[in-house]
Amino acid sequence: MSKLVIVGTVAFDAIETPFGKTDKILGGAATFIGLAASQCDADGAIVSVVGGDFPKDYINLFVQRGMDVSGLEIVEDGKTFFWRGKYHNDMNSRDTLATELNVLESFSPVVPEKFRNSDVVMLGNLHPMVQLSVIEQMNNPELIVLDTMNFWMDNTLAELMRVISRVNVITINDEEARQLTREYSLVVAARKIMEMGPKYVVIKKGEHGALLFHKNEIFYAPALPLEEVFDPTGAGDTFAGGFTGYLAKTGDYSYDNMKNAVIYGAALASFCVEKFGTERLLNLTAKEVRQRLKQFQDLTQFDIELT
Amino acid sequence: MSKLVIVGTVAFDAIETPFGKTDKILGGAATFIGLAASQCDADGAIVSVVGGDFPKDYINLFVQRGMDVSGLEIVEDGKTFFWRGKYHNDMNSRDTLATELNVLESFSPVVPEKFRNSDVVMLGNLHPMVQLSVIEQMNNPELIVLDTMNFWMDNTLAELMRVISRVNVITINDEEARQLTREYSLVVAARKIMEMGPKYVVIKKGEHGALLFHKNEIFYAPALPLEEVFDPTGAGDTFAGGFTGYLAKTGDYSYDNMKNAVIYGAALASFCVEKFGTERLLNLTAKEVRQRLKQFQDLTQFDIELT
Repeated sequence: MSKLVIVGTVAFDAIETPFGKTDKILGGAATFIGLAASQCDADGAIVSVVGGDFPKDYINLFVQRGMDVSGLEIVEDGKTFFWRGKYHNDMNSRDTLATELNVLESFSPVVPEKFRNSDVVMLGNLHPMVQLSVIEQMNNPELIVLDTMNFWMDNTLAELMRVISRVNVITINDEEARQLTREYSLVVAARKIMEMGPKYVVIKKGEHGALLFHKNEIFYAPALPLEEVFDPTGAGDTFAGGFTGYLAKTGDYSYDNMKNAVIYGAALASFCVEKFGTERLLNLTAKEVRQRLKQFQDLTQFDIELT
Repeated sequence: MSKLVIVGTVAFDAIETPFGKTDKILGGAATFIGLAASQCDADGAIVSVVGGDFPKDYINLFVQRGMDVSGLEIVEDGKTFFWRGKYHNDMNSRDTLATELNVLESFSPVVPEKFRNSDVVMLGNLHPMVQLSVIEQMNNPELIVLDTMNFWMDNTLAELMRVISRVNVITINDEEARQLTREYSLVVAARKIMEMGPKYVVIKKGEHGALLFHKNEIFYAPALPLEEVFDPTGAGDTFAGGFTGYLAKTGDYSYDNMKNAVIYGAALASFCVEKFGTERLLNLTAKEVRQRLKQFQDLTQFDIELT
């Protein structure tokens, strides 16, 4: 088993969907990534920052799941990053109602010494310079995975391009892939992104699943068709956490094993959306995950004869 | 091998896409269904109507491919059904610029005697009463597959519901499934449609593939990610033709074989959109189809260990 470094936000979210609303609950990219990665018992460390207002009980959730939190800085006189958002009726789009960076504004990540030789690095959505700083603290990792979003394309494109040139895998949603490359076809967009550096491109299409590109090959992981999507918050990060957790756990970074990793990520993401925030991930058994993976097999595997 | 009856339009289309435009070319639901079904050498008959203006060369295209055309009525003093449409830049939506029903207005389908005992019936998009008339001419077929569209939901819902109650499989696109059931979730919509009669529901999602529902099971056939969609006209009918052709050819109407059939349909549809109208289907080799099916395997098959 390889080690895994996760950098990203640990935050408070306040969420409103057609089904209800929450007060400040546990959220943040590194939170979802870490909880997902811990499902496959990955040996992971969370590198992030919170304020003195962040409950110790939340930190214990990571510790209980075997995640190293020595790189989770606590700024006692600071406030934790806060995001408030509201989903539209179709659940495919949302409005950000508030973003308070707080302690994130001056975050300088420190990767714990014993995790600097990790094989896998998961760069959750954050300022590209913070992501770059993590890369530079690592000793020659096997696999660096980047997640980012349109905000950084709009505001810090040059820095983002530097990060993109340094990573092996990028996970990005379809609209962002189109924005980054100015190409409508996702096949063409993925090829252009591979020319920027990453050998692997994962394009996330929400309820329409995710595509894994490598050279001229494409693999498709569907999203599980659900009766109801309760809260999409964190689904993309959960996917990334399942993906990198699976790769770190198996220590196999081949294209064939990445297919399994995107299926694993898609399976965990399908749980995430069933409840508000992290609630479902925090109450998830290994048996349920196994059953869900079986559902993905049933959903996709066929046996046509190529005569 | 079982026999297959196909009813639907045989028509002239005039198409405009961002890549160019055509004059009147060969089109129509039964045309695409028939050409697709003939790829797997299905023993099929086309039941439709054309005017005296319809070129004999077009009819020969069916005959050369082994399709029976004795149920293709020619109204010598009538004009063939004509449709003119223009696609928007994203290729996912289109405007109908002209629809001239012509000979279709008084079409009364006659299933050739020797095809009345066919196992499989494919009801292409047409007035529900015409579809019903075909059902009533058949001797106890194994499988009746219905394709329809929102136009009939808007204008002839009662008649459409009668047809739906009589078929085994319905193919319908996602927005139409939502319209028919007033349910946003496709899982819930499919369940409601199954309560209307069909044991199997295929929901087509265009570039996002197709879902096959049966009881509590779901199978997902992706669309092949393409560099470019040249002309989507006929893709849904090509899918239906590949689906029913494959089932008739294999004579196996089990859920497991339907998985293969939706993959086969999706593979043929992925060719259809590469050129205007029927052009690509008319120049398609068995080897190309085999290679495309292999691409679908590579796209979807994985080998995760369920520990």
